[in-house]
Amino acid sequence: MLKEIQGGITAPKGYKAAGVKAGIKKSGKEDLAIIYSEQAATGAAVFTTNKMAAAPVIISKRAIAKGKATAIVVNAGCANACTGQQGMVDAQAMAHMTARLLNLPEDEILVASTGIIGVPLPMGKVAEGIKTAVAKLSVDGAENAQNAIMTTDTFPKSCAYEFDLQGVTVRIAGIVKGSGMIHPNMATMLGFITTDAAVSSEVLKQALTKAVNVSFNMISVDGDTSTNDMTSVMANGAAGNPTIDDINSEAGKIFTQALTEVCTYLAKQIARDGEGATKFLEVNVKGAVDFADAKKVAMSIAKSPLVKTAFFGQDPNWGRILCAAGYSEAAVEPEKTSLAIGDITIVKEGLGAAYDEQALRKIMSAHDITVTVDLGLGSAEATVWTCDFSYEYVKINGEYHT
Amino acid sequence: MLKEIQGGITAPKGYKAAGVKAGIKKSGKEDLAIIYSEQAATGAAVFTTNKMAAAPVIISKRAIAKGKATAIVVNAGCANACTGQQGMVDAQAMAHMTARLLNLPEDEILVASTGIIGVPLPMGKVAEGIKTAVAKLSVDGAENAQNAIMTTDTFPKSCAYEFDLQGVTVRIAGIVKGSGMIHPNMATMLGFITTDAAVSSEVLKQALTKAVNVSFNMISVDGDTSTNDMTSVMANGAAGNPTIDDINSEAGKIFTQALTEVCTYLAKQIARDGEGATKFLEVNVKGAVDFADAKKVAMSIAKSPLVKTAFFGQDPNWGRILCAAGYSEAAVEPEKTSLAIGDITIVKEGLGAAYDEQALRKIMSAHDITVTVDLGLGSAEATVWTCDFSYEYVKINGEYHT
Repeated sequence: MLKEIQGGITAPKGYKAAGVKAGIKKSGKEDLAIIYSEQAATGAAVFTTNKMAAAPVIISKRAIAKGKATAIVVNAGCANACTGQQGMVDAQAMAHMTARLLNLPEDEILVASTGIIGVPLPMGKVAEGIKTAVAKLSVDGAENAQNAIMTTDTFPKSCAYEFDLQGVTVRIAGIVKGSGMIHPNMATMLGFITTDAAVSSEVLKQALTKAVNVSFNMISVDGDTSTNDMTSVMANGAAGNPTIDDINSEAGKIFTQALTEVCTYLAKQIARDGEGATKFLEVNVKGAVDFADAKKVAMSIAKSPLVKTAFFGQDPNWGRILCAAGYSEAAVEPEKTSLAIGDITIVKEGLGAAYDEQALRKIMSAHDITVTVDLGLGSAEATVWTCDFSYEYVKINGEYHT
Repeated sequence: MLKEIQGGITAPKGYKAAGVKAGIKKSGKEDLAIIYSEQAATGAAVFTTNKMAAAPVIISKRAIAKGKATAIVVNAGCANACTGQQGMVDAQAMAHMTARLLNLPEDEILVASTGIIGVPLPMGKVAEGIKTAVAKLSVDGAENAQNAIMTTDTFPKSCAYEFDLQGVTVRIAGIVKGSGMIHPNMATMLGFITTDAAVSSEVLKQALTKAVNVSFNMISVDGDTSTNDMTSVMANGAAGNPTIDDINSEAGKIFTQALTEVCTYLAKQIARDGEGATKFLEVNVKGAVDFADAKKVAMSIAKSPLVKTAFFGQDPNWGRILCAAGYSEAAVEPEKTSLAIGDITIVKEGLGAAYDEQALRKIMSAHDITVTVDLGLGSAEATVWTCDFSYEYVKINGEYHT
């Protein structure tokens, strides 16, 4: 349904972006981005459920309540989390400065930050950065913008597509960052999506929630839910379609599916770039009583350090996988549980099955591996994406110093 | 209250033990143990909540229902988990053989196994091992028995104490094994406790549950709850005290406290021997609304791979600690949360505090480190013990092959 196009986050009509070097990151790389719609855009966003939610999360949550998001200002290198009242003042100031320079109401600006926790934002640098970024806004700014939101990411993550919406060609694009402290819950890492479809803010909110629940909420790198997670979608209507104001209409369904595909692609990119990852793992659970149970089992397997280190060691240690299913708190019956790695069944109804060892060794040595658990209890299923646990993860996070 | 004594698991009067080399472990080391009381003993046990519970767990759960445990037979090297109907037959056979040789009813025998999941027990070797172990039972067998239950443990874990129970000297001792796949829930890894106190099986059960809830259920090495966890206590009355039949009596309280101290000592030994550990961490949470919340926060911190790798790197990364508190699902308010490492306060009411960096560096370089989080919301507290996350953990579990 979706056709890939060039142009990144500014591929949808009417969007500009910029990414500049404000001097917040120690590395001196791009660290401040603005994404801007030339015409007012409806918006929706979901946020971290972490009770230590960062100041920009709180400020953006307030702003999005009105259902508009015409510009986003985001910095990397400093999370503005655990920064108390000063952090709130600083996050609000980011929105205020951006609004003033773009001549927009302050509550149409979303603010996001990512980076180190507990350190105040260097507001002088941030103010200069916002000024420069606004001056540089252009349709060619997509690449700099996606670089500016990266932290420990080893590659930028973006996508852009067009699709047919009942005769009107519509574009949708997204960028994300995320590599460690990844275990989104009701929300996600930083993700920004733009579309030139006309969509009511209510439908946008419903569609985003649906999409996030099967994409960003289905990945885990290390089980740590960040203080700064946020995903937003802006819709400016520049494509010229009749405004979608019912998620259950044909257009609403088409749009929701497109948004879901974008979120799923970007979520998988994050799991693929998990800190220290040498493997990309897709954990499919089927035969569950309901979706919640299927997700519990898949997440339990995806989060288990013993499972993740086994995949790092390329060992098909199915005992650890079944063990993780067993403590997931989902309904599970040993004698009904089967397990396949790739297309090879290695556990049949709770018991180790005979299999072609050489064929399995080949599957285990690949970079992308699929694990399928059939609980044999119902018809619900869920898919979670994760990565393995390597020496490199310990190195990245053990040698990282505050 | 407790006085340390020599003799290990057979230090209480009337107990014998043996540990033999049955050939189940590839290493050829001791791998089968029996703990035996010369007179009938009351017993209590708690078991894993993992739904993939191993066959010996199911068999022992049935046996303990009568409140008696006169002998325990345990093997290492093979968990007899995910082994289906054959696993049940094999675990029952272990009880049957032991009962016959000791001339005891089958339901006074507890069976436990630990080791690799998904592989059937080599019953020929097990049968020979049981025969040899019964023949070798003696008060000097404690050391061999504690060696026989070890798997990836780097040191044996046992303790023995005597204490005064209203004028009668009573002894209590315990041994445990556990190093990886450690995140006990309502139960624990393998733990065996003996006492020569006379205690009714009902009081024994209540006291064990109380003790386990603040000891074995408060440790985590890697968040993986095993299929084979089990802790039992045997009480044979050889000390000659009047039988304790009320947990709220003075004697009941003294006994429960002694049992709790034994369980706590052994639980800490397991966290200290966590796979690949270079640090022993005590996480204290106070000021919580209730114990459940305090435990949630402490466990969330203790399980976070980002916190654990930070301690491995000797970095006081308090943002990761507060982040883990924030996603624990407990009631937490950033502006009321304070944090100390050792005796140095580094976060005061949600904000980074000034501190002596050199003094903190010294604390972070020590082997034993205490983290104290004050939530500032109530008066409940909880303590969890864990270890750091090192290259060695990845090595042990990535290079371990099935």
